[in-house]
Amino acid sequence: MKVAGVPYRSVWREGERVGIIDQTRLPYEFHSLRLAHVDEVAHAIRSMQVRGAPLIGAAAAHGFALAMNQDPGDRALEATAELLAHTRPTAVNLRWAIDRLTKRLRPLAPAARADAAWQEAAAIADEDVAINLAIGRHGLELIRAVAKKKGRVNVLTHCNAGWLATVDYGTALAPIYLAHDEGLPVHVWVDETRPRNQGLLTTWELGSHGVAHTLVTDNAGGHLMQHGEVDLVIVGADRVTASADVCNKIGTYLKALAAKDNGIPFYAAVPTPTIDWTIRDALREIPIEERSADEVIFVQGVDERDSPARVRIGNEDLVAANPAFDVTPARLVTGIITDRGIARATRAGLANLYKQAA
Amino acid sequence: MKVAGVPYRSVWREGERVGIIDQTRLPYEFHSLRLAHVDEVAHAIRSMQVRGAPLIGAAAAHGFALAMNQDPGDRALEATAELLAHTRPTAVNLRWAIDRLTKRLRPLAPAARADAAWQEAAAIADEDVAINLAIGRHGLELIRAVAKKKGRVNVLTHCNAGWLATVDYGTALAPIYLAHDEGLPVHVWVDETRPRNQGLLTTWELGSHGVAHTLVTDNAGGHLMQHGEVDLVIVGADRVTASADVCNKIGTYLKALAAKDNGIPFYAAVPTPTIDWTIRDALREIPIEERSADEVIFVQGVDERDSPARVRIGNEDLVAANPAFDVTPARLVTGIITDRGIARATRAGLANLYKQAA
Repeated sequence: MKVAGVPYRSVWREGERVGIIDQTRLPYEFHSLRLAHVDEVAHAIRSMQVRGAPLIGAAAAHGFALAMNQDPGDRALEATAELLAHTRPTAVNLRWAIDRLTKRLRPLAPAARADAAWQEAAAIADEDVAINLAIGRHGLELIRAVAKKKGRVNVLTHCNAGWLATVDYGTALAPIYLAHDEGLPVHVWVDETRPRNQGLLTTWELGSHGVAHTLVTDNAGGHLMQHGEVDLVIVGADRVTASADVCNKIGTYLKALAAKDNGIPFYAAVPTPTIDWTIRDALREIPIEERSADEVIFVQGVDERDSPARVRIGNEDLVAANPAFDVTPARLVTGIITDRGIARATRAGLANLYKQAA
Repeated sequence: MKVAGVPYRSVWREGERVGIIDQTRLPYEFHSLRLAHVDEVAHAIRSMQVRGAPLIGAAAAHGFALAMNQDPGDRALEATAELLAHTRPTAVNLRWAIDRLTKRLRPLAPAARADAAWQEAAAIADEDVAINLAIGRHGLELIRAVAKKKGRVNVLTHCNAGWLATVDYGTALAPIYLAHDEGLPVHVWVDETRPRNQGLLTTWELGSHGVAHTLVTDNAGGHLMQHGEVDLVIVGADRVTASADVCNKIGTYLKALAAKDNGIPFYAAVPTPTIDWTIRDALREIPIEERSADEVIFVQGVDERDSPARVRIGNEDLVAANPAFDVTPARLVTGIITDRGIARATRAGLANLYKQAA
């Protein structure tokens, strides 16, 4: 999407280097990096300069290409796969991208591997963009319907499921970008999303593209819904089960409860690979990552000179817990927006969409 | 309650001055102030050096006494009422305390007004302590019942409805202090309560008293409830209507929804004056204070040298909204804990309790 009028992706090839946006410096500073070595890509993933499942996969693929540029031999190939696989322990897309690269490259003569790796990295990136565009086009219908009926459309979102978390367009935000680009009057309520405040990445990218938005605390959404200020909730998801339970950033469940209580449609927007057909009981089977209490106790930002700074919000001996995700039961979800279409949030609804699509 | 072994109230008379604890410096620093002029009291209320509905009422009464010390004339009396009434728009206790003072003082000769005002302020403070003890004793029964059945008791609370928000004991926390003091194994999940993070006042005061507690983000409560980690929710309230709708700190409604969804009892603990018998439709009739966006955009804390500091969490041109309260409909509330007893959260339940008590 656009940054100051210039179209960007979140990862791109630039000659024999890989371009990324240093997301650890957002939203305070837009700073892009040119990476020349796979070690730099590994560092970028590890340090969350690039984050978001689809982007991590695409970045790893580009890192693979850098490695093959320098040494396309068998040992280097295996070492690269090993290096990249260990950058983030739980990212499914990361493994998937690395497997795809190794399967493609192993049968080739070393001399052919660098070109093939660049091609494969480009394909992974382009496919992600196509998937998100498809999600966007399906979700756009929901926004169009509200706009037709009510004029202005207020969407609430939680966390960052925007283009920064993917290669372009995002998942939850893709319908919003398409709506904005066709001139629909869409405004986005952006949940802060404590403890890591990913909502600020969302406000940054919406603002950069010119989409009207307002940051609110995670506490405010229910009140806004009670007062008719929200027409639609769209969130991303880390996993959607076969029965349409939605595992997403902590706090999503509370917004789904409020949407249900106020008769507001609640959607999760996900690429097809995010649907986990193997999970039967999301609340029991999906392990919820318990992250460091420091994420709660220390808040990152900038000081008065715009330099990165952090404050400790509690007293020194403060004890905090930090579960990172929660599960929104399907009964609270109106539908799942996928690249194949919108499914009702039931086992039958998802099965039906994917049977039709198959 | 005690601070480093010394018993404190949150507001007190000290000669011809009024003592308060500067709550904007908690939890990092315990600092008390001596106020000599009603303007300082108005400032203290406005800037939330004192906050919490009962404390605001008691502080305003003490401010009234300071004003009468300086000028007990009729015009000063009315100007004082006017000044104090406009410090916080939503606080019903504030109006109540001011009305009580004006009714008491108007009939008196000016020369008698200062003494009468100090007496009335002291009475308001003492009555608040007695009221909170009564709330605590009624609420204690709920905690005892859980303890008997389950052993350990996990209570979730939102914002600060502890002794710092009242003159002593608190409302929502009064039952917890009494339970702790009689040796019941109670643990409190404390919502951070963005944007002003009053949860940190709660962790501070619970910690000072030795009550086990864990800070969580406002996003986490639903997840904890889904996993059986919460037995009881007790919050305070700024207003409870005759039909038992609860107006409290923004985000309360979301926790009530989650409690309902998980079959967990949800109580509001309030002194009798917090019940507003005149409101018919809480969502329409209670004005919700919209506070400064800066409260959302800047986060207060301490830096690495423990000095007060703040960070800006968003980019410079960030737009934020900051509604300060929300309304939890009575249908989500199990009961209202008052100084007169526990009422079912219905119009009939409240009417019945107060008929019995009358």
